[in-house]
Amino acid sequence: MQYYQPLLLTPGPTPVPEQILSAVQLPMVGHRSTDFEEIASEAFKGLKPVFGSKNEVLILTSSGTSVLEASMLNIANPDDHIVIIVSGAFGNRFKQIAQTYYNHVHVYDVNWGEAVIVDDFITYLKQLNVPVTAVFTQFCETSTGVIHPVHQLGHALKAFDNSLYFIVDGVSCIGAVDVDLTKDKIDVLVSGSQKAIMLPPGLAFVAYSDRAKKRFADVKTPRFYLDLNKYIKSQEQNSTPFTPNVGLFRGINAYVELVKKEGLNHVISRHFKIRNALRAALKALELELLVKDDAHASPTVTSFVPKNQEELNIIKNQLKSQFNITIAGGQGHLKGQILRIGHMGKISPFDILAVVSALEIILTSNRNVNYIGTGITQFMEVIRHES
Amino acid sequence: MQYYQPLLLTPGPTPVPEQILSAVQLPMVGHRSTDFEEIASEAFKGLKPVFGSKNEVLILTSSGTSVLEASMLNIANPDDHIVIIVSGAFGNRFKQIAQTYYNHVHVYDVNWGEAVIVDDFITYLKQLNVPVTAVFTQFCETSTGVIHPVHQLGHALKAFDNSLYFIVDGVSCIGAVDVDLTKDKIDVLVSGSQKAIMLPPGLAFVAYSDRAKKRFADVKTPRFYLDLNKYIKSQEQNSTPFTPNVGLFRGINAYVELVKKEGLNHVISRHFKIRNALRAALKALELELLVKDDAHASPTVTSFVPKNQEELNIIKNQLKSQFNITIAGGQGHLKGQILRIGHMGKISPFDILAVVSALEIILTSNRNVNYIGTGITQFMEVIRHES
Repeated sequence: MQYYQPLLLTPGPTPVPEQILSAVQLPMVGHRSTDFEEIASEAFKGLKPVFGSKNEVLILTSSGTSVLEASMLNIANPDDHIVIIVSGAFGNRFKQIAQTYYNHVHVYDVNWGEAVIVDDFITYLKQLNVPVTAVFTQFCETSTGVIHPVHQLGHALKAFDNSLYFIVDGVSCIGAVDVDLTKDKIDVLVSGSQKAIMLPPGLAFVAYSDRAKKRFADVKTPRFYLDLNKYIKSQEQNSTPFTPNVGLFRGINAYVELVKKEGLNHVISRHFKIRNALRAALKALELELLVKDDAHASPTVTSFVPKNQEELNIIKNQLKSQFNITIAGGQGHLKGQILRIGHMGKISPFDILAVVSALEIILTSNRNVNYIGTGITQFMEVIRHES
Repeated sequence: MQYYQPLLLTPGPTPVPEQILSAVQLPMVGHRSTDFEEIASEAFKGLKPVFGSKNEVLILTSSGTSVLEASMLNIANPDDHIVIIVSGAFGNRFKQIAQTYYNHVHVYDVNWGEAVIVDDFITYLKQLNVPVTAVFTQFCETSTGVIHPVHQLGHALKAFDNSLYFIVDGVSCIGAVDVDLTKDKIDVLVSGSQKAIMLPPGLAFVAYSDRAKKRFADVKTPRFYLDLNKYIKSQEQNSTPFTPNVGLFRGINAYVELVKKEGLNHVISRHFKIRNALRAALKALELELLVKDDAHASPTVTSFVPKNQEELNIIKNQLKSQFNITIAGGQGHLKGQILRIGHMGKISPFDILAVVSALEIILTSNRNVNYIGTGITQFMEVIRHES
């Protein structure tokens, strides 16, 4: 342990780059000052390419769950029919929020670790045979490491019923995926600050289409702190309706600078490359991947299934105690079944090389099989060839 | 301007002490780790004396308005009768939240700049002649600089009807006032991080009585991110239901250390002393105080009324352009009528001496009266005698 610096590889919060930390801790300014208006205006605009949004992105001082809730309260009235795709713990969160407020909640379950099959889902909607106002899905399901085919889903939904609103939770992947509200037919896309956007936790984001904006103004479901109309109105004056986390707004601008420097396309391809290399390495270490289909594996989180709970505990504890590396366990019914490695934001291939190497050492001593060099070789083969 | 470091004297956000900034920017840890459990446990406990609460204080990742809303949604059902004391812009905010959700909202207006008169208010409640579930008031009204007689109000309310819930917005004064939920008969007391608690904005706090806790569990008003039952349940495991602002939680612990070092009683008396000295100085500069009654003047915000709008603009602009000092204007119908000086958190007597001195120079050159030395002398006379 004394050899190793802490390495945080949870699926958020993620390590924060020094450039962002420095910006976050600049001296405080009043949030009703022209200084803050400049900071806010830059942040609202700066996030547009990251969310693939024509409209400036709304920024709430709160965490991801609050914008899952806001995306619902501002799109659907209490008696509307809404459909939730549930493929993991965050799908369940959408479901819980829906059941708190709505009278007609329809849940479409997908096996945890699999992506939604678009045709099957459209068939389900047809059979449901009710006027559906909105469909809610995760983009990447953080609890499993699945990426859903959001582009295809958006097109299929609008072909099925053009009046539907399509709401996407991008908390664990925005900043690491190619997305465009117009091209992907998304009406509302939400995210949080502490994942691929690599800020500390504390801000949440909402990108919206023009028709969603009109809908927000018409919807009657009561809300106040989460009333997106208030945020849109304030944004037109480069402001926020309630006291913003001033430091983290500055952090966004530092993040946007970092993305510009690297290039958004490069940032995205880096995430996918690390995903591919890590999956190859885990296979070499005979660790079962939870997400079987390479095409449906998230670019930000990779889940694997140790041989049994004893091996799971050994891996998690020894990574921490011997190597100072923190990864995450499972959630919901996958608790005690899987481990999850986050690889988003500032995480570089060499950070993931480190965890693969540590896994080799742990598995070699616990399985009585010599894995030394096998995972890291596979990892670097993929990194080398895809660069 | 080149001579002067920026001095932020708005009524929040306030300057952040270096010890807090350093804590806020420590390397990120996962929020489901034992590291974070220790941080959170310390924060929940550390805030108890500041809020005068037997129960650990709930911490939400959001800003002050969200806990004004939470204090209502968790105490009252949609058909309950609730009474809002409105004495300024934040009373209006309580009113707006109430009108968003509730069918029987009763507003008791108090002149802006005055404190509620307890006997008059009880007479009003008697005449109202409906079963009132809860009464909502500000502790200090940030928009005017009034402190309400919360202790007397709490006792009078419970004498009037022991089943009433008494809800207090302490956003702009907790950390600067003597308060005790039990002694003051308060059921819910909320605050934010960016005022006298001198953190950056981004956290909000809820202290609650035992009977409020029972009430939260019974109330049916729909809420999810603002469901305080979820926070209480997580707190029992030293955790939070949704991703917390990890950095600011560490900031709380640094704040609590600073308060312990100075002594909470001393922190409070420092705020009142600065208030008294500043009021004496403004009188010496022939600047009218908005709050006439010394006993009802907030220890954290002092409002004054320039002779006319031209003088107001000169003062505000020259403080900024010549002296790099930021103060705040009025809100609501007091916009363009008053200026507000915040003096809370890390603000020392010498910071306020600086703004008084700058006011002397500005008024001397604009009123053709020599004020040099008059305000600062009065200021230091009070500081000296009360120390």
